[in-house]
Amino acid sequence: MKSFTFQEINAIIDGEIIGKTSNKITGLEVIKKANNSQATFIGNRKFASHWTDSKASLAIVNDNIDLEPGDNRVLIKVKNADLAMAKLLDAFAPTTPHFETEIHPAATIDASAKIGKGSRVGAGCYIGKDVVLGDNVTLYPNVTILDETTIGDHTTIWSGTIIRERSVIGAHCIFHTNVSIGADGFGYRPSDDGRGLVKIPHIGNVVIGNSVEIGANSCVDRAKFSSTILGDGCKIDNLVQIGHNCVLGRSCIMAGSSGLAGSVTLGDGVVIGGSASIKDHTTIHSGATVGAGSGVMNDVAAGKTVLGYPAVDSREMLKQWVALRKLAR
Amino acid sequence: MKSFTFQEINAIIDGEIIGKTSNKITGLEVIKKANNSQATFIGNRKFASHWTDSKASLAIVNDNIDLEPGDNRVLIKVKNADLAMAKLLDAFAPTTPHFETEIHPAATIDASAKIGKGSRVGAGCYIGKDVVLGDNVTLYPNVTILDETTIGDHTTIWSGTIIRERSVIGAHCIFHTNVSIGADGFGYRPSDDGRGLVKIPHIGNVVIGNSVEIGANSCVDRAKFSSTILGDGCKIDNLVQIGHNCVLGRSCIMAGSSGLAGSVTLGDGVVIGGSASIKDHTTIHSGATVGAGSGVMNDVAAGKTVLGYPAVDSREMLKQWVALRKLAR
Amino acid sequence: MKSFTFQEINAIIDGEIIGKTSNKITGLEVIKKANNSQATFIGNRKFASHWTDSKASLAIVNDNIDLEPGDNRVLIKVKNADLAMAKLLDAFAPTTPHFETEIHPAATIDASAKIGKGSRVGAGCYIGKDVVLGDNVTLYPNVTILDETTIGDHTTIWSGTIIRERSVIGAHCIFHTNVSIGADGFGYRPSDDGRGLVKIPHIGNVVIGNSVEIGANSCVDRAKFSSTILGDGCKIDNLVQIGHNCVLGRSCIMAGSSGLAGSVTLGDGVVIGGSASIKDHTTIHSGATVGAGSGVMNDVAAGKTVLGYPAVDSREMLKQWVALRKLAR
Repeated sequence: MKSFTFQEINAIIDGEIIGKTSNKITGLEVIKKANNSQATFIGNRKFASHWTDSKASLAIVNDNIDLEPGDNRVLIKVKNADLAMAKLLDAFAPTTPHFETEIHPAATIDASAKIGKGSRVGAGCYIGKDVVLGDNVTLYPNVTILDETTIGDHTTIWSGTIIRERSVIGAHCIFHTNVSIGADGFGYRPSDDGRGLVKIPHIGNVVIGNSVEIGANSCVDRAKFSSTILGDGCKIDNLVQIGHNCVLGRSCIMAGSSGLAGSVTLGDGVVIGGSASIKDHTTIHSGATVGAGSGVMNDVAAGKTVLGYPAVDSREMLKQWVALRKLAR
Repeated sequence: MKSFTFQEINAIIDGEIIGKTSNKITGLEVIKKANNSQATFIGNRKFASHWTDSKASLAIVNDNIDLEPGDNRVLIKVKNADLAMAKLLDAFAPTTPHFETEIHPAATIDASAKIGKGSRVGAGCYIGKDVVLGDNVTLYPNVTILDETTIGDHTTIWSGTIIRERSVIGAHCIFHTNVSIGADGFGYRPSDDGRGLVKIPHIGNVVIGNSVEIGANSCVDRAKFSSTILGDGCKIDNLVQIGHNCVLGRSCIMAGSSGLAGSVTLGDGVVIGGSASIKDHTTIHSGATVGAGSGVMNDVAAGKTVLGYPAVDSREMLKQWVALRKLAR
Repeated sequence: MKSFTFQEINAIIDGEIIGKTSNKITGLEVIKKANNSQATFIGNRKFASHWTDSKASLAIVNDNIDLEPGDNRVLIKVKNADLAMAKLLDAFAPTTPHFETEIHPAATIDASAKIGKGSRVGAGCYIGKDVVLGDNVTLYPNVTILDETTIGDHTTIWSGTIIRERSVIGAHCIFHTNVSIGADGFGYRPSDDGRGLVKIPHIGNVVIGNSVEIGANSCVDRAKFSSTILGDGCKIDNLVQIGHNCVLGRSCIMAGSSGLAGSVTLGDGVVIGGSASIKDHTTIHSGATVGAGSGVMNDVAAGKTVLGYPAVDSREMLKQWVALRKLAR
């Protein structure tokens, strides 16, 4: 277990120390549950009143909040308690799951696959024909990588995730558990007799940039032809659907349970709120935001915020909600 | 195949027998599809008219419904046909999938893991360092349990489910197929150059109580620090998202495709309808109900029912819907 | 890599050739990204203006669009560029992932299972007791098929998918990655002391017809008793929830992230839009359409289109939306 003195903690977050404590800090906890070997955070005045009753020996406090440390306790004042928290989370991060050997004997790896230096492959993984893993790639147990996929350096793929054939995955990506990359897109045409549907083959692939994170049980479909593309730095939450031939720019964010139908284009830095869904062939331009729960049926201009179902400018939607509330009275 | 006489069936459900039949009952079926070795249920007057044409030899009937059994057929009248059905479903339950050996040789189990008496581990399972399984735990094939996770007695985990490191799972739980427990929460901060996003480490864990059931392809994220918590008796349906640092009380229900963003608190006995979603840092107090499809943006008081998007008191929302319908005419 | 002359391409799509080119065509690409060994599509006048600047050597063009081919370039005019595209996608389809042996030695197959001629089973697959696979079935690596399930000829199941015990799957089906078939339905009754919930056993199964496709990470729950049924030709997208005891007719379509609660009935040819959800025990009659994002609380008549939340006739809902927009001004 990691353990820090209050001076060592301040060396990480560079704040102003008030008080002192002989207790070592071995972890982080919310103010009401912390014990005397834990540090806590007071980023907000409404938590300040809990400090006296808290058992925490140390609190990181936003510098606009006035508090006394008390006996054998320390406050460290910082400009931004959230940023200090992120640094301490790094400092306290426990070790990641253990690999007994770099390449587990219970993995199945095609003879043609190339695996870079320092890469680790867990038990039960399958690595297909002509797959190329870069250096320092981590595949946790029971990951499946199908033929001709390439994965960049330092990418981590958690258990249960499937990456289908001919995907191109960047460096420093993180794919969480049970993700599906490269499944066929959803496309059919009427059969010649008009009584059924014929599958349209999806012969394209998925191309994912660097530093992309994809949440648990999310799906990115392969393109009909050409590629479904996620730009560098995109962050995708759990249970998100990204349809065939979507193109996402750099650093887009999609929150949990949101979805893009086929051939949606997102510019750079687009934010899609939780459970929102976007119609096929729509473009959401750079810097635009889609509110949680919205249903977007039309293009959204750069920098604009839309909300509601059907989604419109957020101020307009708030007016609609107020008007309807008044009408009902 | 299990087989019961009508007297044996009545011994299970303790009703009033009308008529008799020589046919043995080997299964349950809906009234229109049943054959003469099956029992059916008439819990509702609208199904009563189908009795004459049904081939079923036995019907369990709510005692406020008047019917004649007919020749070589039996009615068993009960106070609550649904409760009788639940008891008969138990009686007719077929055997669960077979384990040839308790611990399959094609499972990979770290030498440090502890496995309790009567526990069964299927082929392709991975059990990591310092994992502890209680007694009579069942892991169906291709389950992954990462390091330092503990699982209580009599818990059943179906194939494809991943439980990440340091999770604490109670006794008598059921996790269905392709569930993701303990993936990192969704949190980023702007990078120092302001041009990208830096991942916030999630060093907490997931703690799940006793008798919790989690549906197929659902996700429970680990906490940033401290724990994401599901209280005893929570029942979670398929494709549900539970974000980092959520805390659910006892016996909460979340129906299919619903979701909680980060740091949502549910009291005891909260019911979340299908496809509903709840904003981050919101509290839904004990006994409250969120209607299907709702988007909740504010705290909900104990015992209250909210509905709609944005969700408000359900009676208020019904008035809004009526008012809008009138306005459109 | 496959390679075709423009004459060979026209032999597939049977259009009218204008111009000629010496370049061989090795793939398909969108008009702005194509190089001179790729063909592209102009199904719509707004793309026609890009032809002059495109590097593509060949375009398939709807016959109502006037264009000149230019030097060493070919246009092939067709009645329906989308249909021609579907045919060319078939022609250019690359090989599917490689199987070194039909039955991989790292699969675990119960001695009682029957596997038809030409069927292939990848590494890490589990096939339980009394499972029957037809002829030419493909199980990609890390698929799990539990006891007594039967799978028809020519069905393909992608990695990570779990099919639970006693499922009956038709011929020519495609199940994508991480699908969950046959998990228990979501049903509880109050415990005898009224303080908790008791699980209702789900002893039924799932029955899926021929030519059914199910998208990545979708779920079809088993029935309480009797069967959850998907008729021939149903096409289900990613992250879709189908609850216990639902019955879908022939050729129904459910788009991404949509969901059916328990005991929903769909007629033939019903279309459910993306992210739409349907209340339990509702019937959507044949040929009806549910718009994207809708929440359906009542039965829908044959051939009708409903929209919105709560969903009503689509023209009525459009009027409501217009009325609300006006009211807010």
